[in-house]
Amino acid sequence: MSTTSPPPRVVVIGAGFGGLRAARALRGAAVDVILIDRCNYHLFQPLLYQVATAGLGPDQISYPVRTILRRQRNVEFRMAQVTGVDLDRRAVLTAAGPVPYDSLIFAAGAETHFFGMEGVRRHAFGLKGIADAVGIRNHVLRCFEEAVLERDPALRRALLTFVIAGGGPTGVEMAGALSELIRLVLRKDYPRLDLADVRVLLLEAAPRILSGMPEDLGAAAVASLAAKRVEVACGTLVSGYDGASVTLKGREAIATRTLIWAAGVRAVELARALGVPPAAQGRIPVESTLQLRSHPEVFVIGDAAYLEADGRALPMMAPVAIQMGQVASGNVVRALRGESPLPFRYKDPGSLATIGRNSAVAFIGGYKFRGLPAWIAWLFVHLIQLIGFRNRLIVLINWAWDYFLYERAVRLITRE
Amino acid sequence: MSTTSPPPRVVVIGAGFGGLRAARALRGAAVDVILIDRCNYHLFQPLLYQVATAGLGPDQISYPVRTILRRQRNVEFRMAQVTGVDLDRRAVLTAAGPVPYDSLIFAAGAETHFFGMEGVRRHAFGLKGIADAVGIRNHVLRCFEEAVLERDPALRRALLTFVIAGGGPTGVEMAGALSELIRLVLRKDYPRLDLADVRVLLLEAAPRILSGMPEDLGAAAVASLAAKRVEVACGTLVSGYDGASVTLKGREAIATRTLIWAAGVRAVELARALGVPPAAQGRIPVESTLQLRSHPEVFVIGDAAYLEADGRALPMMAPVAIQMGQVASGNVVRALRGESPLPFRYKDPGSLATIGRNSAVAFIGGYKFRGLPAWIAWLFVHLIQLIGFRNRLIVLINWAWDYFLYERAVRLITRE
Repeated sequence: MSTTSPPPRVVVIGAGFGGLRAARALRGAAVDVILIDRCNYHLFQPLLYQVATAGLGPDQISYPVRTILRRQRNVEFRMAQVTGVDLDRRAVLTAAGPVPYDSLIFAAGAETHFFGMEGVRRHAFGLKGIADAVGIRNHVLRCFEEAVLERDPALRRALLTFVIAGGGPTGVEMAGALSELIRLVLRKDYPRLDLADVRVLLLEAAPRILSGMPEDLGAAAVASLAAKRVEVACGTLVSGYDGASVTLKGREAIATRTLIWAAGVRAVELARALGVPPAAQGRIPVESTLQLRSHPEVFVIGDAAYLEADGRALPMMAPVAIQMGQVASGNVVRALRGESPLPFRYKDPGSLATIGRNSAVAFIGGYKFRGLPAWIAWLFVHLIQLIGFRNRLIVLINWAWDYFLYERAVRLITRE
Repeated sequence: MSTTSPPPRVVVIGAGFGGLRAARALRGAAVDVILIDRCNYHLFQPLLYQVATAGLGPDQISYPVRTILRRQRNVEFRMAQVTGVDLDRRAVLTAAGPVPYDSLIFAAGAETHFFGMEGVRRHAFGLKGIADAVGIRNHVLRCFEEAVLERDPALRRALLTFVIAGGGPTGVEMAGALSELIRLVLRKDYPRLDLADVRVLLLEAAPRILSGMPEDLGAAAVASLAAKRVEVACGTLVSGYDGASVTLKGREAIATRTLIWAAGVRAVELARALGVPPAAQGRIPVESTLQLRSHPEVFVIGDAAYLEADGRALPMMAPVAIQMGQVASGNVVRALRGESPLPFRYKDPGSLATIGRNSAVAFIGGYKFRGLPAWIAWLFVHLIQLIGFRNRLIVLINWAWDYFLYERAVRLITRE
């Protein structure tokens, strides 16, 4: 390479699991990397529900991107909102001006999908970012404070009814954690409240929950949720919400002040800027090499990418994004060397969902686990994946504390 | 006492240092206590500046009031905004309805005082609550993110100029911690920024800082701040701020995006509801027994109370509030027994201010300390005063980590 011309520039959009892995995998490569995100931190989304249920503080599952990349000389981080992609001029458009690229890795992820229900979008809580999780925590605790002072029994029950829509791993984990927060912890803080007024409901439109797992694990999860007094209702489709009542298709409405929406995600709106007709859930179809057919210098990875394996779309999950980040960055380097790109092959590490104390379901390498072994596997897997030893240590202390003392540390209402 | 009539009711307004102590000191007394606060947590304000400078998370210096009072049977907590006090009917007015009392302990504390400067009120940051501290943290980090992308040198310098008004302990601690955050930590995250562009200024209207301490300790603090590259300017009065430029009386204005206002506090607005002409800083004059002369069933304590000792007003500090809470609750009980109330006598535990690593000044029992001994005393005093063993443990881990690795854990920009 000439000493006068700068190295090729790789722009990565998004510092989630996929984008961060792509940027880190380019360490040592003869490229300049610019990583852009609207947040200055990488968020460990799998534990977000624990922020929503007052078990962890937001800082314990987040890590500043600049610190992660501090020792990598060929990367520059920019905090900016990406507004578009100019494919012809090869530039990412941001609120702080255009950023030209030679190769682009698009890893902007997914957002909550409300299926066009405006009332749900306005009044329900998503669970994709820190603001969502802190919003849920504040709201749930506020409902209890208001319920203590509420004299009308119907209004009090509505304040103490919590509905979670969506029976995937996020909804299951949220429902289990919320019920434990109430039954194990808040019970002690509100001795004057009658816990018989409290309901936690998990609604799923499909005939069963955890449809990505074998059927008997889903049944085990239902039993475990029932033991934690979560009411699971499958075949139940939400048709609207006005902040006071969830309407259901063909069933009686539920009076509640709280609807947590874990029933759908879709690729971020920004994915449309790639000029490709989207597939299901707004995801962008890519070649097996993760490239856009029309623009081979553009790679799309993670939740924003649509790719099938064995005839099924790859799931919108962290392991897919991480593995895609690794392959996409490898293909960027191969292309610069004039080598042909390699196809992506997903190695499924299995799936896990925790329901609460001592209870989880896991499907790993064709083996099924449940109860305590699955729960211990879940703890271990999540703890080692957190970035930063301090975060791991403090999360471990919080988990141990909460486990043995039946507490939750972060029961703060921080916003009006 | 008859078994049919309920015990006398004591209402405490405010769950800060004074109100919380008063409520806890009434444990075991034959009274019903209702503690009212608009927040559901007790905040350890002396460490708030460490939240503002990304060293601690808000949850580490806060503790849910209900949990603190869980084992105290005669107390009920209500989260509500107090809107007034009806002295004649003996009722506290709240957004959730009136709360009648037999005795009232008013401990609603203080708020930031902007001396009528509307621009300062609108554009500067106070430092009284969690929202203030998180707001400062987000803003300072955002200034650095924007400075990286800013090409105009004058605008970049304005983004990297941080002005703290007020040379009391809060301003001194904030200035020292902010300078360390920048010089020790952010320096590593922003290798492309020229630190020569960064300025941290501490402005004080009086001729010297830390006027509550002996003069040589103030001088030691100035030297220590200078070593941390904080510019201290005494005799400097802020006359206005428009978000871009701080105007000073008789001096050149300073272009800055950040003004942190630690130059004044006053009793909360609500104190006017007590119908007594306020003394300096809006504080309510009380008898030596902490009672209102016109309404002996009303006690005012802490920052909201005006009481002199040795001809000087007692300072608006936690130790005063705590000791007053103890005496006021004792006097409530004495009055119920028909005994005459006791006068309040302040036992000064001394004062401490930390300037950063290994550096603090302390004036305790007439003895002066500085440097490492004062700093260790400061660490010890603050750690043991935190409520909750977990908070103590996690704060200790964070402090040790930051001390040895020159880090700050919570460098997150969490709001737009």
